[in-house]
Amino acid sequence: MPLPNQEPQLIELKQRLSEINDIESVIALLHWDQATYMPAGGAAARGRQIATLKQIAHEKLTDPNLGQLLEDLRPYEASLPQDSLAASLIAIARRDYQRAIRVPSEFMARLSQHQAASYEAWSEARPANDFAKVQPYLEKTLDLSRELASFYGGKQVADPLIERNDYGLSVDAIKPIFQQLRQQLLPLVQAIASAPQVDDSCLHQFYGEQEQLNFIKGVLFRLGYDFNRGRQDKTLHPFASKFSIGDVRITTRVYEHHLDQALFSSIHEMGHAMYEQGLSPDLEATPLAMGTSFSVHESQSRLWENLVGRSRGFWEWFYPQLQGTFIRQLGQTSSEQFYRAINKVQPSLIRTDADEVTYNLHVMIRFDLELAMLEGTLSVGDLPKAWNERYQKDLGLVPSTDTNGVLQDVHWYIGLIGGMFHGYTLGNLIAAQFYETAIINDPEIPVDIERGNFQRLRDWLKHHIYQHGRKFTTQELLERVTGRGLSLDPFLNYIRNKYGYIYNLKL
Amino acid sequence: MPLPNQEPQLIELKQRLSEINDIESVIALLHWDQATYMPAGGAAARGRQIATLKQIAHEKLTDPNLGQLLEDLRPYEASLPQDSLAASLIAIARRDYQRAIRVPSEFMARLSQHQAASYEAWSEARPANDFAKVQPYLEKTLDLSRELASFYGGKQVADPLIERNDYGLSVDAIKPIFQQLRQQLLPLVQAIASAPQVDDSCLHQFYGEQEQLNFIKGVLFRLGYDFNRGRQDKTLHPFASKFSIGDVRITTRVYEHHLDQALFSSIHEMGHAMYEQGLSPDLEATPLAMGTSFSVHESQSRLWENLVGRSRGFWEWFYPQLQGTFIRQLGQTSSEQFYRAINKVQPSLIRTDADEVTYNLHVMIRFDLELAMLEGTLSVGDLPKAWNERYQKDLGLVPSTDTNGVLQDVHWYIGLIGGMFHGYTLGNLIAAQFYETAIINDPEIPVDIERGNFQRLRDWLKHHIYQHGRKFTTQELLERVTGRGLSLDPFLNYIRNKYGYIYNLKL
Repeated sequence: MPLPNQEPQLIELKQRLSEINDIESVIALLHWDQATYMPAGGAAARGRQIATLKQIAHEKLTDPNLGQLLEDLRPYEASLPQDSLAASLIAIARRDYQRAIRVPSEFMARLSQHQAASYEAWSEARPANDFAKVQPYLEKTLDLSRELASFYGGKQVADPLIERNDYGLSVDAIKPIFQQLRQQLLPLVQAIASAPQVDDSCLHQFYGEQEQLNFIKGVLFRLGYDFNRGRQDKTLHPFASKFSIGDVRITTRVYEHHLDQALFSSIHEMGHAMYEQGLSPDLEATPLAMGTSFSVHESQSRLWENLVGRSRGFWEWFYPQLQGTFIRQLGQTSSEQFYRAINKVQPSLIRTDADEVTYNLHVMIRFDLELAMLEGTLSVGDLPKAWNERYQKDLGLVPSTDTNGVLQDVHWYIGLIGGMFHGYTLGNLIAAQFYETAIINDPEIPVDIERGNFQRLRDWLKHHIYQHGRKFTTQELLERVTGRGLSLDPFLNYIRNKYGYIYNLKL
Repeated sequence: MPLPNQEPQLIELKQRLSEINDIESVIALLHWDQATYMPAGGAAARGRQIATLKQIAHEKLTDPNLGQLLEDLRPYEASLPQDSLAASLIAIARRDYQRAIRVPSEFMARLSQHQAASYEAWSEARPANDFAKVQPYLEKTLDLSRELASFYGGKQVADPLIERNDYGLSVDAIKPIFQQLRQQLLPLVQAIASAPQVDDSCLHQFYGEQEQLNFIKGVLFRLGYDFNRGRQDKTLHPFASKFSIGDVRITTRVYEHHLDQALFSSIHEMGHAMYEQGLSPDLEATPLAMGTSFSVHESQSRLWENLVGRSRGFWEWFYPQLQGTFIRQLGQTSSEQFYRAINKVQPSLIRTDADEVTYNLHVMIRFDLELAMLEGTLSVGDLPKAWNERYQKDLGLVPSTDTNGVLQDVHWYIGLIGGMFHGYTLGNLIAAQFYETAIINDPEIPVDIERGNFQRLRDWLKHHIYQHGRKFTTQELLERVTGRGLSLDPFLNYIRNKYGYIYNLKL
């Protein structure tokens, strides 16, 4: 019996998914506007507008007619090659649908309310160094996070929370990798800390905001960020945001005595944005049209920021231009001195200021502590103490206040815990693994970078990663691109080579 | 029998209306972003996103459950004072609902498609001076406009189109007023044209963009535009746009050899924005939360732009500051010379560049011609000829190209004709009528303006006009505020006095 013609159903599916995608894109724009240009007076209504659109998107995403359509399309899907666009679209839309309908609307409403309240409490508690203020919110956050997890089910309580951002990953997959990584990193950090320190004072002279922004714009343009399909604005915290494949914007903030801040955070956000700009246009307005996971997304930002942006080859090309822009500040600083300055390793208290070597220690502290809280082996009341003890152990420092300690990151205070922090470290590992493969595939990549030509690297990334969007999960993509699952080796090799040289150590 | 408790139904009504309002506000933001900051690559998706939200808003506005709710609320409404907030809300929501359901969705889709196509044709035809290119679109526009009118019905074909923007107004009400106005204006314009001309060369020196924008910002702030609930950005065409009562933004464009352009168009847009900022907060997120009509809105922009902004008293206060900002350009120009320069009268071909005296002649040409086209007494093919003849008659000038003639304004080429142009002239008349009443009510208003104090005028406008939003129609508001219907006298008195003085004529 021939298959019935399911084209009309596929068209209806695309139409429904396009509407959902449109509403989600508009929500992203509402957030972008709030962070960039919205006057303060617009805040209350903006919150309401976002909630209204979220509600509409949720209704459309959980519409039983969508579910029925996805069931009806099963035979058609089965008739297609598994990695064809249509088959992926149907399969991933069904996955999204089935996950969405597990969570009652009533819960989402309760969660939303709590999220706003928790964030507000943190906004006041952090500057006031007042952990007691957020404690009850954090306790409720844990309850709600466990409740959310319970709707999906999983081997470990954190598994469904991780899968929200990294489909297919689990605590059991992440934990042993993190344990090994920590064991390898701790002695490295100690060795570097005992070596003579790098002088990074050249970065802390006065660098005018407009000159910084102009230089950065030139860098982003050269790296291949498409300003016809993007732009950069200023916000309190840098971020990247997509409204369509043709409109992926980034933001930055500038410190006039920290040259590295705006520069590297801009390259970081550009990495996120290039991923989205590089999606195949065929995916536009479908649920495939985004980076596949939190950790792969982070791998793309870190690849550009660190593996490329903090490499010697990169500055072979860009340093003369930077010197030309800031002759007074950098005229007497050699390219080598600058390279060392931007790669200075120093154990510190603040994750977002951390260098490449210590950064993952910060992340793993958070991952372990949030897991312990979710699993009920650590109480919220004991969290600051546990935090400080672990900082002492891993980084040899104890925060003098909770402001610089357990209150520093927003993540635990937005009303939902779990499934975020692991992605930062996985991103670093995956970045190294992808970049190693890229250079094996095309050894001319680093040569071209020294000449200021980034086309080869972009082509490789676009071909192997960007274009596919959500077609492959984190693990599928790793296997496909690098021929193996997640590995620590590329990252550790990279760190050992680079910092062994800079610190003149055998690491 | 006591009334059933209808509070829950009122709450449901407000909830539904708030959602519709939210979606409409978001659509406005999507347009604002498109005009201000969106990169070119975002255009295609943006069109789709706007269409998706429009469709959702339309579905919600025409939802039969909303209609039923409005019917159920009739007894409750009848029990309330007629001008109470709840009664107005129910009545105006019902009016909107009943008008919306008259127009089939199928028609709206056809209209939307045609609108996009027509606009695109005009975008190419105008610079190319190619009226033939837009002719078929304009013919279809007339068909669709008549079809739209037929869904509502009215004495004249243009009546329902006018009522879309000015509820309660009609051709029969407007036509005799316009005829009188034209008869009075023609000899005035002739008399002024024969008098010695004003020298406005002081406005056409070089005025740097940033200095202009800074000065304008100071003016807007002083006039009372609330920058905590608004902002000003640059766009190709100036406009005002509201996303909530707490977020009403304006845009401008700057010409460095036309000091008056950005300055007065900013005050104009600020007038629109102050109206929206001045709405009672109780109206937020309801269909009452906007200026009541096209013509009353225009009265508020023109009141600030012309009656206040081009008055001698205004420049008593601001001219020294303007001189201080542009010493090189204006150091030798007296306040009196400047006042005359910004009020120069000169018949010209372009509506948007026209002075206060000739401006309404431009508008009435368009009103008469579009009426003739809608009524079928003028064919589209004959339009350019009719346009040029009427310009010769009323302004003594004939456009050398259609680019500067019949193709100059976008209005006829956005795929829907009728119900727009009348509002520009009514706005001028209403502005004068309101301002006359304001000064009678509070004679200190012009005295305060000379001292740079605009609070009294703002308070009067807010109390009598702004706060009410759509509670009263154009005509109800005129009656309420000025004690009579629309009158020509205030405008003509204002023009005769002001320009009689400037041109030393007995007008």
